[in-house]
Formats: sequence, C-alpha cells, structure tokens
Amino acid sequence: MTDEARIRTSFARQGMMATLGARMLSVGPGAVAIAAPLTPAVSQQHGAGHAALAFALGDSAAGYAALTVLPDGAEVMTAEMKIHLLRPAVGDRLIARGSVVKAGRRLVVARADVFADAAGDETLSATLIGTMVPVDP
Amino acid sequence: MTDEARIRTSFARQGMMATLGARMLSVGPGAVAIAAPLTPAVSQQHGAGHAALAFALGDSAAGYAALTVLPDGAEVMTAEMKIHLLRPAVGDRLIARGSVVKAGRRLVVARADVFADAAGDETLSATLIGTMVPVDP
Amino acid sequence: MTDEARIRTSFARQGMMATLGARMLSVGPGAVAIAAPLTPAVSQQHGAGHAALAFALGDSAAGYAALTVLPDGAEVMTAEMKIHLLRPAVGDRLIARGSVVKAGRRLVVARADVFADAAGDETLSATLIGTMVPVDP
Amino acid sequence: MTDEARIRTSFARQGMMATLGARMLSVGPGAVAIAAPLTPAVSQQHGAGHAALAFALGDSAAGYAALTVLPDGAEVMTAEMKIHLLRPAVGDRLIARGSVVKAGRRLVVARADVFADAAGDETLSATLIGTMVPVDP
Repeated sequence: MTDEARIRTSFARQGMMATLGARMLSVGPGAVAIAAPLTPAVSQQHGAGHAALAFALGDSAAGYAALTVLPDGAEVMTAEMKIHLLRPAVGDRLIARGSVVKAGRRLVVARADVFADAAGDETLSATLIGTMVPVDP
Repeated sequence: MTDEARIRTSFARQGMMATLGARMLSVGPGAVAIAAPLTPAVSQQHGAGHAALAFALGDSAAGYAALTVLPDGAEVMTAEMKIHLLRPAVGDRLIARGSVVKAGRRLVVARADVFADAAGDETLSATLIGTMVPVDP
Repeated sequence: MTDEARIRTSFARQGMMATLGARMLSVGPGAVAIAAPLTPAVSQQHGAGHAALAFALGDSAAGYAALTVLPDGAEVMTAEMKIHLLRPAVGDRLIARGSVVKAGRRLVVARADVFADAAGDETLSATLIGTMVPVDP
Repeated sequence: MTDEARIRTSFARQGMMATLGARMLSVGPGAVAIAAPLTPAVSQQHGAGHAALAFALGDSAAGYAALTVLPDGAEVMTAEMKIHLLRPAVGDRLIARGSVVKAGRRLVVARADVFADAAGDETLSATLIGTMVPVDP
C-alpha cells in the first residue's frame, strides 16, 4: 500500500472526521492538508467555527504529516498539542496544512497552520505545534 | 440572569457541543463539568475517543470555569490551549472538569482534567491548561 | 547508588544550576524541590526574577521528579515544556516543586509549580507542564 | 528614544541576560536576534547548553520582537511560553531569532527559533511560541 493510500485509509476510519465533514485535500512527503466546512453544527456560541474544529483539523494534519515521514506500517499518536487561536474562524471552510518540524526515532514534532477560507481568500486562524509518538500498529 | 443560567445559555448556543452530544453536568464558582458519550461518531482510527473530543470538552470546561469568576455579562475566548493525551479515551463517556488557575483582569489561566468513565470507573485521559481572554460581548 | 544520590550527582553536574545559585531541597519518589535566590543577577528589566529562572528551576524539578520513577541508570531529557507566568517573581527566592503526571515507557509527563518565597510566605508564581523522554545514558 | 534604543536599554537592564553573557545581535520591525556563548557555566549535566539557556534567549527574542510592533513606551510581559527542544545545544553559541505571529491590542503571539552555531554552521536546536501581554510601564 502506498503511503498516501495508507494515510487515506486511516483518515477514513476516524469517525470524528466524518462527523465534522472533513476531507483530506492533499498528502505529500511531510505535508498534509485537511479541510472542513464552517457550518452551525461546528460553531461556538457566536456562530464562528469552534476552537475544537481548528484543533481537530490541525491535529490531524500535523499527525498525518508526521506519518508520511515514518517507515511503512508505522502509526502515530498525539502525545501533546498546543493551539493558538489567532482570528475568528469565519468563512466557508477551514483548511489545515500540516508539516514536520523534526522527525526523530522516538518522537516527531509536527505543526499545522489553520486558515479560514472565505470565497478563496485565506486568513490564518490558528496555529498548532505538538509531539507525535510512533506506536506499534 | 444568574451566572449558571448565563453559562448554560452560552453552552446551548454552541453547535459543536450539540454535535458531540455534550452536556453540562455542573456549574459552580470556578468549576464546571461537561461530559459527552464515547461513540463511533467521535472516534479516532482505532475506535477510541478522538483527541479533538477531549480537547472540545476540556477547552469548554476550562473556558466556562473562567467565565464563572468574571463580572456579569463578560465573555471569554480561548487565546491558547495545550493538551496532553495521557491514556486512550475508552469507556462510556468523557467527563471534563475545568477549574481556574489564576484570574487576572487581562487574562484568566484555566485548566481541565478529562476522565474516561467506564461504568463509573474514571481514568484520567487528558489534561489541558490555557489562557482565556475576557472580551466585550 | 541510591536514586537520591544519582539525582544529586546529575544536578551537581549542571553548570547552569550553579550559575543560578540553585540547590536541591528534597528528592522523593515522584517529587523533587529545587530553589534559587532572587538576586539582581537573575532579574528581568524591572528587578523581578526572570522568566528563565522560573523555567530553569521548574524544568529541572519536573525532570528530576520524572527521573525518580524510572529504572536505575536511566536518564531523561526534556522534549517540550510549557510555562505560565502567573505572578511576578519577587521575594527572597524561588522554590520549584516538581511532580509526575503520568509515567509511561516512552514518555513521562511531569509538571512543576514555582513559588516566590518572601520571608516564608509562598506565592504561586509560575506553573509548568511538559514531556520528558527516557534516554540511554 | 528610537525603538531600537528603547529595546536595547530594556535588554541592558536584565541581570539574567548579563549573567548568561547574552547580547542583542539585531533589532528590526518584528524581528530580534539575541546570542549567548555555550560555556560550562550554562550547561546541563552532559555538557550541552541547558534548556533554560535556549528558553532565556528564545523568550527574550520573541518578547522584544513583540515590543517592536507596539506603540512607543509600551512594555510586554510573557504570559505563557512553550519550547520544543529539538537537538542538543552544542557548538560555540546559541542564536535566538524572534518574530511576531499575530499582534493584537490585548495580546501578541510571538515565536523564536534557537540555533546552535558551530563555527558558522547553524543547526535548529529549539523552537518556541507564546503569548505576550502589553503592560503599562
């Protein structure tokens, strides 16, 4: 199974991603993009996208970016993750772009930027960085 | 409006909380508990609860705990939040218990512990700490 | 070598701890306390203790607390650490009290509270939580 | 007083920076670089630079970068800061390069990368991101 197929299979198994309407936009070496629509179902109390949506997409994009740099068959878990909410998540959808900061044997440090996309105009809405742990499948 | 009514009204306006099946268990001065069932709809790829579920409940519990210590009519936004995923979220539901570390004029530092509840046995699954900013409503 | 002797030997090898005037107050299972005087040599621009002093003591107290729960001969490195600066570090000295949140095979999550001690009155000044990695010596 | 003069004056008042042998390499709009030599006085137990050195330089570089984007006369305090230790701090000196992620009225999010410089070869050793609060002087 190619890396991309393996990653798309794992993504498809996440009930949460389906619940949020998320889909994987792209998978490349050390770089993954995931998007989900901004709808009332994922809003906070003022109608903007919930911090947990930005977290869900950013954490997944960072985690799958980490997975692309690990040996075939590996899996990763998030050990810890930090998020800064920079601007309200308003627009049509959120797009999270994950990348790898440092890939080690024991740990992978990965990050993601989350953009609010309004009719094609993207605004940085949140930024995440955290620690992924390779685990035996 | 009492503090508790104000907080329950805000909670009820969050589409994300309804989507996750979350409900507010208790609201007290500087202490809020929120729970949601562990179902396939909020799972990660191995069937355990998704990190974003723990984040959603923990962030909300911490944020509403912060709100209980602010003047009437105030609102808070999460500026940044950190989460450690300690043990898999398996069981019947997750319960997040939020509390206030330090309430200042400009910032409130708040935290939450998230427990996996399996038939009444609770295991610490995640812990969060972050910064809330009072905002004008 | 006992755990405590091993930990005190490691501490004594840290040039930074000597430079800061830090000393280890106590070592117990999963709990370590380290203190250093608040002097102009470790101040920020307004004369209070520098954030880096609170970080240095808190990180070390958390790291050595982690070390007490690992097998003999193990060592740990800080993978990542987060600090909230809650109140100015003013008084006679800072005391950091480290403890273990979760000890795993691959990672140990540890935390520390840092208190400003003014004539015996302690005020919580900073709180830290982070990830330690066991490494081969 | 120009921004740069104001920032260099504040830096010169930090006893900790003098104790660590740190000096400010450059100050520009939203970008500050600070360096300090790697010596036994700032080492951890294996002789590499201590995590607290990377923190001290990175936190200061991020904080002063934040200050360059605030109105004249403003000051900032670190509210919270996160650091990933990526590679051992070995070489001649550490160089921290701070920049601004998002400047708001209430908060500034700033970051820093810390490089180990060995005979002119720079390796990324640590990365920090955190929240600065403008305060009245």
